[in-house]
Parts: sequence; C-alpha cells; structure tokens
Amino acid sequence: MEDPGRPPIILRPIGVIRSPHRTPAGTPIQPAYADEAEGEVVVDEPFERALDDIEGFERVWLVYWFDRAGPFAPHVVPYRDTREHGVFATRAPNRPNPIGLSVVRLLGRDGRVLHVSGIDVLDGTPLLDIKPYVAEFDAHPVSKAGWLDDRREDRRVADDRFHGAGKT
Amino acid sequence: MEDPGRPPIILRPIGVIRSPHRTPAGTPIQPAYADEAEGEVVVDEPFERALDDIEGFERVWLVYWFDRAGPFAPHVVPYRDTREHGVFATRAPNRPNPIGLSVVRLLGRDGRVLHVSGIDVLDGTPLLDIKPYVAEFDAHPVSKAGWLDDRREDRRVADDRFHGAGKT
Repeated sequence: MEDPGRPPIILRPIGVIRSPHRTPAGTPIQPAYADEAEGEVVVDEPFERALDDIEGFERVWLVYWFDRAGPFAPHVVPYRDTREHGVFATRAPNRPNPIGLSVVRLLGRDGRVLHVSGIDVLDGTPLLDIKPYVAEFDAHPVSKAGWLDDRREDRRVADDRFHGAGKT
Repeated sequence: MEDPGRPPIILRPIGVIRSPHRTPAGTPIQPAYADEAEGEVVVDEPFERALDDIEGFERVWLVYWFDRAGPFAPHVVPYRDTREHGVFATRAPNRPNPIGLSVVRLLGRDGRVLHVSGIDVLDGTPLLDIKPYVAEFDAHPVSKAGWLDDRREDRRVADDRFHGAGKT
C-alpha cells in the first residue's frame, strides 16, 4: 500500500486562471487545439515582483491544480483513443496528485496579470506555478509518443468523462 | 498580502527519484546538459498499474518537489545570467510552490521502476507525477526565450546558490 513514510506536502495556490471554458465538455483537450482561446493568469499580490522579465518569453508553462477532476483511476480511456491506458501514460486529470501542465502563448503582462492565448484550462482553476518555456530545454520535436502515434480517435475537445466523481 | 481565501492543497508523494546527483553543486542545471546521467524513477506499489503503456513513449515529464530548495525569493540571479530576474522568469527552485519539471529520456520499465537518462534531479527527490512527453503538445522549437536568448553565462552545472536557507 501507500508508503506511510512519505510526509504530505502542503501547497498554497498563488493565483487563479481565467478562461472562457466554464465546463469540461467542449474545452480543448490541449493548448495546441485552443489557439483562439484567450485568458488571464492572475497572481496574488505577494508574487507580482516574481513575474519581472517574463515579458520576453513567447510562451510560459502554467502549473495548476485540476480542482474539478474525478478521483484517481489507475487506468483511463483517454480522449484520443478508444482503449484503456495507465493514467501516467496519458494527460488525463485523474492522477494521484492532479497537477496540470499547459504551455500557453504569452501576449503581455499588466502588473500581476498575464494575458495569454491557447488556453485549455477551466475558468477559476487554482494556479500553482509559472515557468518560462525554453525551447533549448523543453522542445523535442521528434519524440516517439506510444499509443498516441497509433491513436484511433482525433478528438480535440473534452467531454465530461474525467470530471464527475466516480465517472471513470 | 496572501489571499486568505485560497484553501491549501495537500499532496502525497507517489515515489522517489534516484540519480547520481547527491549535492546541488555540480548537478546539471537541465536535462539537456545531463545526457549521460542515468537514474531511476520508483513509484510506490499502489501506482504501479498507472504506468501501463508508458513504455511506448521516448520521453516523459517528471513532476517533483524541490525538497532541498531555499525559501521563496521574488528575484534570483539564475545560473545562466549575472543579473537578477523574477523567479517566474527562471527555472530556479526558490518558487512559492517549489515544484520541479524535467523531461527525461525513458530507457525502459521494470515493474514500478522506470529507467531514465538525462536526469538533472537530486537523488532522493520526492516524485509527484509522471506525464508522457507528446511533441504535438509540448514541442515549440522556435519560441523566444527573453533574457536567456541574451544570456551572459553559459553555465551548465549548478552551484549551491539556491539550496542553503536564505542563500538567495
């Protein structure tokens, strides 16, 4: 069973993500399919200075909490396939620690607000961290992607399969 | 000050990262500079099945906890420059929520152990999540990288500037 020796970790959200996506159904499943969607990343006042110089980056990583995800499910049927896969082999939200990760385009900064596009995150999602996207570190354009390379579905927007409690 | 309305979030590490890097000083600052370094990602038993089908991916994201980072610092002098920048414009660990993110090459899986290379993480680091690297979502090879594009330092290994308490 779960290792009782691992102490819990306490996070405090640093702000909130604002987007046009109010419900899981219809939300793009990845920023790559959300080019038109604009949103705002609002950090709380104690963290405003930590944004300094972010304006120079074309893209940023948003690290956030899937606050409306269903419970952990070891296996899921992801949007892009019709078969089950281990949840760590998918980007589905039903993870042991439901931490989300999306790269968005940075349009500009206004104090403690970042204006972004290509957002696939639900409105009101708690923000945990922001990191600059650095192609030298993060871009591996040729990288084999397992079942996704052989996928049976080309779905680009979500339904509600991962969000109701016990809906997995 | 910090928004008192944001409830805390409790995480439970799902395993541990094993690497040859025992101290911050000398550790590669990014996986891109750690090609030779091999390590193991060990998930706890309740999460073993969630790894199913991960073998097909060439790279995976490790999401982890910077357990030896110093306290939050709004501004830091990153390894790749000689000037201060906001911490959200850097990959330094002194973040409000010290969540780390590294893409590593997946060499193979043995039950609940992933063998990986290109690891820039300290030995014993608590693991929070594993996600498949999907070039279609994650690779933006041409993406302007602010101060990093004009950097004054080409340092590729760490010193201890971010790890002692108050060492910022």
